[in-house]
This record gives sequence, structure tokens and C-alpha cells, in this order.
Amino acid sequence: MNEQMKDGVTRLFHGRAVAVVGASTSPGKLGHEILANIINGGFEGAVYPVNPKASEVLGLPAYPSVSACPSKLDLAVVVIPAPFVPSVLREAAAKGAGAAIIISGGFREAGREDLEEEILAITAETGLRLIGPNCQGINYTPNKLCASWPLVTATGSMAVVSQSGTVAATLAGWAVDEGLGISATVSLGNQVDVCETDLIEYFAADQETHVMALYLEGAKDGRRFLEAASRAIPHTPIVVLKSGRTRAGQRAAASHTSQLAGRDEVFDAACRQHGIVRVADIESLYDSAKALESLELDGGDRVMVITSSGGCGILATDEAESCKLQIPPLPPEAVNDLEEAGLLPTAILSNPLDLTVAPAEHFEAAVMVAERHELADSYLLIFGDPIPGATEVLKTLKARMGGRFAVAYLGGGDVEKQERLRMHAAGIPVFPTPQRAIRAIRDAAWAARFRARTARESV
Amino acid sequence: MNEQMKDGVTRLFHGRAVAVVGASTSPGKLGHEILANIINGGFEGAVYPVNPKASEVLGLPAYPSVSACPSKLDLAVVVIPAPFVPSVLREAAAKGAGAAIIISGGFREAGREDLEEEILAITAETGLRLIGPNCQGINYTPNKLCASWPLVTATGSMAVVSQSGTVAATLAGWAVDEGLGISATVSLGNQVDVCETDLIEYFAADQETHVMALYLEGAKDGRRFLEAASRAIPHTPIVVLKSGRTRAGQRAAASHTSQLAGRDEVFDAACRQHGIVRVADIESLYDSAKALESLELDGGDRVMVITSSGGCGILATDEAESCKLQIPPLPPEAVNDLEEAGLLPTAILSNPLDLTVAPAEHFEAAVMVAERHELADSYLLIFGDPIPGATEVLKTLKARMGGRFAVAYLGGGDVEKQERLRMHAAGIPVFPTPQRAIRAIRDAAWAARFRARTARESV
Repeated sequence: MNEQMKDGVTRLFHGRAVAVVGASTSPGKLGHEILANIINGGFEGAVYPVNPKASEVLGLPAYPSVSACPSKLDLAVVVIPAPFVPSVLREAAAKGAGAAIIISGGFREAGREDLEEEILAITAETGLRLIGPNCQGINYTPNKLCASWPLVTATGSMAVVSQSGTVAATLAGWAVDEGLGISATVSLGNQVDVCETDLIEYFAADQETHVMALYLEGAKDGRRFLEAASRAIPHTPIVVLKSGRTRAGQRAAASHTSQLAGRDEVFDAACRQHGIVRVADIESLYDSAKALESLELDGGDRVMVITSSGGCGILATDEAESCKLQIPPLPPEAVNDLEEAGLLPTAILSNPLDLTVAPAEHFEAAVMVAERHELADSYLLIFGDPIPGATEVLKTLKARMGGRFAVAYLGGGDVEKQERLRMHAAGIPVFPTPQRAIRAIRDAAWAARFRARTARESV
Repeated sequence: MNEQMKDGVTRLFHGRAVAVVGASTSPGKLGHEILANIINGGFEGAVYPVNPKASEVLGLPAYPSVSACPSKLDLAVVVIPAPFVPSVLREAAAKGAGAAIIISGGFREAGREDLEEEILAITAETGLRLIGPNCQGINYTPNKLCASWPLVTATGSMAVVSQSGTVAATLAGWAVDEGLGISATVSLGNQVDVCETDLIEYFAADQETHVMALYLEGAKDGRRFLEAASRAIPHTPIVVLKSGRTRAGQRAAASHTSQLAGRDEVFDAACRQHGIVRVADIESLYDSAKALESLELDGGDRVMVITSSGGCGILATDEAESCKLQIPPLPPEAVNDLEEAGLLPTAILSNPLDLTVAPAEHFEAAVMVAERHELADSYLLIFGDPIPGATEVLKTLKARMGGRFAVAYLGGGDVEKQERLRMHAAGIPVFPTPQRAIRAIRDAAWAARFRARTARESV
């Protein structure tokens, strides 16, 4: 990423003066919603609605043109019909903007390659960096700048970079509902200028971002993409959902953002070789990013499953076998120690270890026995009932042994909902089913193994 | 199911006089929580806490023994240590009870086959029918009887029958959160007496139940199970999640409820042959049951995907190809009609049909064109943005063309949450991702095809 790109992208996320071009007075219109989200998200810089037909929009004075805005700009958010975009971009550049987000569609995806070439020429002329066109904008919570929809303000450490605005908004929504938050969402759209690779480079250096979740339909420059990912992954892991797995999907992708999807096996192999975790659906993108954000694994494949629900222990075991993870049986000495650990007489002392409906402290007691016997590289703790106070117990465990456990919490009603938020606040990842937890552990363990191997090789 | 079993199971769900044996004054204990849930669930019959050490529990007068309860019983819920259970069952039978739920563990799964044989003998002696032992109870919302945990009161038409109390509680919890509700949950436990097949027979005849979702670790009598399922399926579809898919999972299942899991391929083939929808994880159990509860399909495999999110359209297409569903291309005449249908100029007129960020009415317009050209057997409508008013549009569509569409709603923030509840109230199934929606459509279409074939053959 050259300096000009770096400066442009930095002002995209950290800008202090933002114009919303096409800011509408009609609720429901995107030019209204985006302005409302910037205001309601608490953005602390200057915001200038640009609308020649209004004197104010959402309580802010409106300006008839970009040129008429009362200060220099960092960023322009453009929500006007495609044919009017080029002149607005020139004005924004003249007004000092480093970046523009073009929400509007009606470019290449609608047969208007000419318009897209024109705006690309403007970036070359002016140095203005562009997100979009045909996109859902960006949200950077550390700057309280939600130039997108829906409004999301909860700060976290996951950056979502997506060729689908909906996928980005979906991950952000889940992260908010679960008390995790996000650092950023970026909807890429047609990627006429800033592309997924530029953003990988940017977020790899962003202090607020600890993991990247990407939805892609294709990479603009495959080699650059893989090189950037390789450089990022030792400190900022990357999870990718790429569509166009099938021929029908590839045809559909070609009409969405006109990216050539390429052969799926080739992309798959490249991910494996470069340490990128590739997943198959939206929920796995979220789950694995969540796991990589917080689990501290060394890459071993032995999982100890401790559960209040026997059935969920079995489902976890089935899934682990499918995922090529080990659920090692307990040696007799460990069983002896578990017998002395004060568990319920109904507990079934094996792996999976079925505590039956037990208090949270029994999970701790069981983990401590397993640790003493070095039975597992990671733990899946399944809370299958309303078990209050589990978070306090897990915080103690985490302080003692590091982030080596994932939680599946289900069937726990309101207690579950509260505990999930608390666990996430404590950096402990919680999954809605044992199967999803096991798949996330698999991905996090694989990524840890990859990192360890790369670190050894580079010594 | 013989008459005595039928009477016992009927009094299990419809009982008007219930004793809770082991009703505890200590919050957190199961004997306290279950009593609280029966009371707070609004049960309108008589409730008798049995506790020799308390004069009242949760505001109700307590009785020192089952015999001391002031009226005849229909049902006893038993939450006391296993060795004391047999004598309590005899008392309950003497008091007129038709059924008992044994929550307590400590039987076969803990090496006490003798105790289990003893209670089995009591059923033969007395005619008392037993649920459990080692289970999480039952909930039957039409009788406002939540003899289980957590408390669930929302009525719906899905009955969940499960060898894992947690899986049952999880489905019920999701159904409540999504505004669907349940008709029943039954946690089977060790199934010393009443088994999954008895409950299939019961719920097949239950007016409140339109679909059954089963979690099994094995069937007590495989042939009877399949025969009962075959009789039920023409009017009450059945979805099954069976664990023990892998050898490791089978070993774990053997220690949970001591069921022999049997060879997985055999079970799989039997399901296919008898029209049982088999799924691989807890979320699919819920999704496919939800789809079968409300979709009205004829079994055709052509799906039209209409979306506000291009990316989600591609993900749906990929998943459809994996699921062997067709996403047929649009003939030129249909494209012509779509061009006249008042869609946005940015819309991409293909299948998937990408409306881009469009109002709900555009979904209706697109469906009507597709219907006119008879392009699809079912529809997946993807709302990938906050699109208000969609439910009203879908209600109109449903009235016109029947329940032939599933919805994926995602990335829609608060609007999505409200619309999901409204759509479910209107009998329109909503899924959290396009992939899950496609899989649910596949299962519902398969079940419809099976039903149609069976109906033809039986003519």
C-alpha cells in the first residue's frame, strides 16, 4: 500500500470532517438513513449534509454543493444517482477530501463501465481514494463513524470487510447482540479503487482490530491478496467466506460485482497454504472470527468436553470426529481424581464428561483435574441448563490457564442470555450449539498450528 | 399404543391435579425450579408440593407425603434421590395418578439397573406410566403445564421429543424468542416406560401439534418407531436429529442413556424410506421443523431467489446447488415482464433476482411475474436490509398463492427483529441466513415429494 493510499484510507476511517452528498429529508431514503446514523452514532467531527433543495437536514444546516461546505473535508459519502457522481468527486477532491464512499449503484454492474472508468480516472488525477461504488459504506466504531446502515456503535476488535453489505451488517448485528461489538465494517461494492487487499493491509496495522472476517466473491489481485494476508496473519488472523463455490454461484457472482470467481479448489488450496481460515457459511465466518479473536491455543487437537447435558456431549463428540479433533479417553488416574473432586454422584466420568445438572464450580473442578493430568489442548464447556455464576468461575480459570476454552451455552433461558454477555465481556467465546463450538475450535487450532509452524520456519 | 398407555400419556399432558414430590424451598434446586415453573406458567389445575420438612413451598401448602395430598392425582413429578423413587411411585398410583415424571438420575446410567427394574415392575403392577428417569420433564403449553425448565409458556404447534433435555429446552427457547412457541417438549431420559414411539403416536393425534422435532440417541424398538412414524407423517411431519453418527459419538451415547445407537447408515436409509427428515445438527432440527410447520410445497425442486442483497443471492445459489435444488434461469419473456414491473434501475434481472435496496412491494411485483410464468415451485425471499412493511406484503402473497415462500432476513437491525416476529405470527418461516433457508426448503420439498408419492401409491 503506497503512502497516498494509506493516507486516503486513514482519512476514510479517522476523518474529522464528513460531507454526506445526497442527504435527504425523507426518512427511509439511504441519504437520510446514513446521515442519521452518523449523527446518532455520536460522531464528534463536523458533518455537512449536501442537498441543494433543503436548508437543513436532520437539524444540521445543509449546503447546496460540496464546494459550499464551510471547511475542508476528509471524507465525502456520496448517495446520488451515478451520472452525477464524477463531478461531485472532483469537487470533494478540490475541497481537500482524502477519500469518498460511493453508496450509489448504477455503474459496471448496470452496464455503465464508462462511468466507472471516469471515476477511476479521477482517483488517478486527484489522489482521492474511493470505496464502492454500489456499496453499503463503512463503520469504524473507534471514530464513532457509522457511514452505513443499520446503526452499530458497540466497539469490539473484529473488522468485517465484505463484498456484500448485508453480510457485513449481519456480522455486526450479531456481534452487537452478543455483547462483542466490532472495530469496523467495510462494504466493498465494485472496488473500483480501494480493494480487500488494501483493507487487509490497513487493518493488520490497526491497533483496534484483532481479527478480520472477510466475505469475498473474488480477489482483485490474487497474488497481492495472499501476500498481504501472509504478512497480517502472524498477528491478525483472517477468516474468509468466499461464495461462487459452485458453477451456478459463480454465474450469479459475475452479475453481482462482476468479479471473476476463479476456480474454487485453487482458492481453497491457496488459503490453506497461506494460513487463511476458509469457512462455508455466514455463521461460520462469525463463529471462527470470534474464536480467533479470543482463544489462545497452541494448535494441539485434543479436546476435553465437559458438559451439563449428556446429549450435547455426544453431539460434540460426533462433530469432533468429523472435524478430525481428538476427544481422548480418560486414563484411570484421572478418573480416580475426578471421583475425589466433589462432583455429583450422577456424573459420568469419561470424555465427554457429563456433570449432569451441576453448579458452575463443578466445571472448574473438572478442568483442574484434566489440567493436572495434561489431558487436553483445549476445552469445550457446555452449559446446557440455566447455570448462574458460570462467568465468575471461567474468569478464574482463564486467569490461571489462559484462553484455552470455548463455551457452548444453550437451553439456559434468561440466565443464558445474561451469562453470554458476561462471558463475552470477559473475552470468553460462547457458541449457540456444541457443533458450532467444535468447528470454531477446529479452525482456531488449525490457525494456531499454522502460526507455530511459520514461526519455526522463519527462525 | 394400548388404551392404558393412551390414558396415562393423556393424563401426563392434560392432568388437572399434579404433585411435585421433592418440592424444595431452596431456589436453584430442581425441586424448587420445577414447582416455580408450574406455578408461574399459569397452570390452572391443583398443585401439591410434597415435602415432609416444610409447611409451605412457594406460597402453596406442602404435604408430608403423596398419600397426604388432599385430592386424587393425575400426575406426580418426582425430584428425589433414586432409592426413594419406587415407594413414591406406589403411593402415586394408589392416589389415582395415571403418570409420573421422574426427573431424578441415579438409575441405569449410574449402574443401578436394579432400581430401574423395580420401577418398571411398578408400571406393570399399577398401570402408572413413567417419563424418565434421568430427564428434564415435560411442558405442554395448551395445558399451561411447564413441569420442566426453563419456563416456556408461548403456545405453538411444534412438539419436541428429546433424549436430551437441553436439546428440547434449546428448541423451545429459540421458538419463544422468534415468536413461534411450541405445543410441547418432552425430555425422555432413560425411557424405562414411555418411549419416543409412544409420543409419536400421541402427538400424531394431538390437535395442537403440526410437526414433531425429535432428538434421539437410539430407538427402543426400531420397527415400531418406523411404523408409528409412517402413520404420522401424512399429516404430522417428523424431523429427527440422531447423534452417535460416529464411533466416538456412539461410545458417548452408550454411557448417556445406555441406548445402542446402531449402525448410522441403517438408520439413515430407514429414515429416507419412511419419509422422516433426518438432519445433522440442532439448528437444522429447528429450521426444518419450522419449515415443515408452515411451508405448503408440492415437492418441486425449482427455487426462485429474490433478494435485496446480491451477495446473499449468490450464497443461496451455492447452497442450492449443494442441496440439488434448481435455481432456473429466467426466460426472456419473464425478463421483459420484470423490466415493466417497476423495479429499481439497479436491479439485476436474473435468478437470483437482485432487487438491490428495494421496498417490500418490489418483492411482491417480482413474485407475481415469476408466478405468471410458472418459473418456480418455491421462493426464497432474502431481506438483507431494514425493509419495513414486508410482512404485510407477504401476507397478501400468501393469501394469493399459499405458503410457498421462505424468508431469510439478515442485516436488518431492529426492523428485522420486529418483522421476524410479525412474519412468524403470519405463518411465514424466517431463517437467519440464506444457507439455512435453502436447506430448510430442501427438507420441506423432500418431505412434500415423499408425501405425494405415498399418497399416489396408496390410491
